[in-house]
Amino acid sequence: MYREYSAEQLNELKSELLAQYEAYKAKNLKLDMSRGKPAPEQLNLSIEMLTHCLDGDYKSENGIDCRNYGVLDGIPEAKELMRPLLGVAEDEIIVGGNSSLQLMYDTIARAMLLGVYGGEKPWCKSNKVKFLCPAPGYDRHFAICESIGIEMITVPYLEDGPDMDMVEKLVAEDDEIKGIWCVPMYSNPTGISYSDTVVKRFANLKPKAKDFRIFWDNAYCVHHLTDTPDKILNILEECKKAGNPHMVLMFTSTSKISFPGGGLACIGASAENIKFIDSQMTYQTIGYDKLNQLRHAKFFKNFDGITAHMLKHKEIIAPKFNIVLDMLNKEIAPHGIAKWHNPNGGYFVSFTGMDGTAKRIVALCKEAGVVLTGAGATYPYGKDPHDSNIRIAPTFPTCDELQTAMEIFCVSAKLASVEKLLEK
Amino acid sequence: MYREYSAEQLNELKSELLAQYEAYKAKNLKLDMSRGKPAPEQLNLSIEMLTHCLDGDYKSENGIDCRNYGVLDGIPEAKELMRPLLGVAEDEIIVGGNSSLQLMYDTIARAMLLGVYGGEKPWCKSNKVKFLCPAPGYDRHFAICESIGIEMITVPYLEDGPDMDMVEKLVAEDDEIKGIWCVPMYSNPTGISYSDTVVKRFANLKPKAKDFRIFWDNAYCVHHLTDTPDKILNILEECKKAGNPHMVLMFTSTSKISFPGGGLACIGASAENIKFIDSQMTYQTIGYDKLNQLRHAKFFKNFDGITAHMLKHKEIIAPKFNIVLDMLNKEIAPHGIAKWHNPNGGYFVSFTGMDGTAKRIVALCKEAGVVLTGAGATYPYGKDPHDSNIRIAPTFPTCDELQTAMEIFCVSAKLASVEKLLEK
Repeated sequence: MYREYSAEQLNELKSELLAQYEAYKAKNLKLDMSRGKPAPEQLNLSIEMLTHCLDGDYKSENGIDCRNYGVLDGIPEAKELMRPLLGVAEDEIIVGGNSSLQLMYDTIARAMLLGVYGGEKPWCKSNKVKFLCPAPGYDRHFAICESIGIEMITVPYLEDGPDMDMVEKLVAEDDEIKGIWCVPMYSNPTGISYSDTVVKRFANLKPKAKDFRIFWDNAYCVHHLTDTPDKILNILEECKKAGNPHMVLMFTSTSKISFPGGGLACIGASAENIKFIDSQMTYQTIGYDKLNQLRHAKFFKNFDGITAHMLKHKEIIAPKFNIVLDMLNKEIAPHGIAKWHNPNGGYFVSFTGMDGTAKRIVALCKEAGVVLTGAGATYPYGKDPHDSNIRIAPTFPTCDELQTAMEIFCVSAKLASVEKLLEK
Repeated sequence: MYREYSAEQLNELKSELLAQYEAYKAKNLKLDMSRGKPAPEQLNLSIEMLTHCLDGDYKSENGIDCRNYGVLDGIPEAKELMRPLLGVAEDEIIVGGNSSLQLMYDTIARAMLLGVYGGEKPWCKSNKVKFLCPAPGYDRHFAICESIGIEMITVPYLEDGPDMDMVEKLVAEDDEIKGIWCVPMYSNPTGISYSDTVVKRFANLKPKAKDFRIFWDNAYCVHHLTDTPDKILNILEECKKAGNPHMVLMFTSTSKISFPGGGLACIGASAENIKFIDSQMTYQTIGYDKLNQLRHAKFFKNFDGITAHMLKHKEIIAPKFNIVLDMLNKEIAPHGIAKWHNPNGGYFVSFTGMDGTAKRIVALCKEAGVVLTGAGATYPYGKDPHDSNIRIAPTFPTCDELQTAMEIFCVSAKLASVEKLLEK
């Protein structure tokens, strides 16, 4: 435990760590671990889809020529394929283009300009629009809010989800709070999944704003890393039970199932919400790429096909998570300078170091050739109040690269911690 | 000339036409000519793209794995392919997803919420936002405005483009006018192309609103029907000469080159506009479908490839336009009850009948099994002040179907005209 070291011991340790660090630096490495990107081996799992998948056949099961105009909300077999990911009925889904981020952004843009189902006026007609942002969270969620001028209120994460006492209190009091961001399963970056209690409390929220929406980004719903995957309750079902059927909008995509550049994204919600969104969306586009929808439906066939496919992803990436966790357990745990969660799925390990060390660790890594997600990125406005959280994305590098990157990371984390302790 | 007929002659003619009409009705036809859709034979021209085009190769020329995240504005070879369509430089283009309509809608939504390059505030902060709408025009342009609450001001079309006296006067006077819709080549539905004078007058507009934009939807830029195609000036170049480089936003797509369901769309504009749009768009999506961009680049290779491809389209659809025009010349022209333009390209023949007959003609056709674009659709708010314009879309039906459909159309047009003349 570094905290128990004397100043002398810390200085000695610092010299040692600096020497180690300089040795790594001399290697002139160049590794990018900044984003949760699948590795090329993962993308290879789906390449059949790109070639002969549509040989001589481009009609949907109901006879639509997928090459031509039409069908705003997705061809039947694409809906059928995606429905189980969100646990929704046929009339509770829209299959869109290649990006769930785009569906989320567009949903918020429409809510701002036009309003949501049952809302009295567009959000932008409110004095202010605010979102609750459980943090650490997904930087691109927060960036949407910031870009559109939506004020963000940070809500801390507890062990089983956002601090629901705070969420309940805030939404009940303030009708300018129009939404909350959630990544309910293998949360980005914490890796935790929401407990049944948390999901039920979400479904039973009593927001003062009648046009409040839960943005339920279930990006990692089938992205398991272990044989004992997490399970979460179906929020739409819970919302229906609670008499709040229209309060949740769910999103997911195949970005980390098939291709991040060329997958399918979808929205799930109450039939009324979906109908309303369709009625707004029809002015934006005649339809998304049905050929890519057909490609996915033919390749995966059904949800079992996706499940089997995800096991292959797991085989590739679980060892990478193990490298990260083994290194942290071996190099960091004994010194009491950080904590992290051992995720059952998702794409990240969330590292929480000593206060005031995250930026320094990221800078040290960068100087030694390892690019991490910027410190603070996991918080609204990019400002981590404790400057302690770092998102580690193990999937893209090779195992060898990752091993080296984690060695550098651990040396950097130790060095930054020792420096911090010496300041005191 | 029906106008010169006596009431008795008209009544006699009406009986004859009714008998002909009833005979067609008895055939119980079902033909849809409501939209400008390519025929299956046209889509077959590009099917190679759907199969082996990406065999074992999914890297862009600059080494980007098109299956993975990244590249907001399009891979280099897709930009290279699309640039000549709009006549823009490398830094003056964004290649997007499958829909130019979506790019236009999103551009307007962002202008409303966030503002445009050089604008002082978002459009929605104005008391009112108005668009000039040359009409008859594209119904989906007008629908975007209507859905977002942008007030539309109709501008009539003259022989060589919109009434520029009116356009110049209105934009100079009213700073709530933020945009104008243009389809400069083979205009939807009139088929005319803007003269050099009109393009230059556009480029030299002096709008009172500093954040005014020309929405230049060059949807039919390579969609020629004859060996003597129209040519239009490059509006961006003209705008630069006139000192208004940022006033125009250009759009086009391969929807009617490759696939309406799975093509590529793009925005062209000044480098400053493009940079600004990129800076806003980065919050909406990580990137469009690069695999489809690569597919198109590999299939068409370059602009010459597109030009050669469009000749094949012409071979398929020019005969269909001839069927429409021959029928109109033979059946309608002698009676002085309508006029139309003989287009050198595009997807439509714009039929202007006697005042107060368009709705009736469309209804008669529908009753006889031929669905046309709704009368009025080519005007803002769906309201044709003269109830005289009908958009004929010849491309989708087979030649035989089209022949029959046009027979029904001509009988219906004659019948409606005779009815109208009898009212007087």
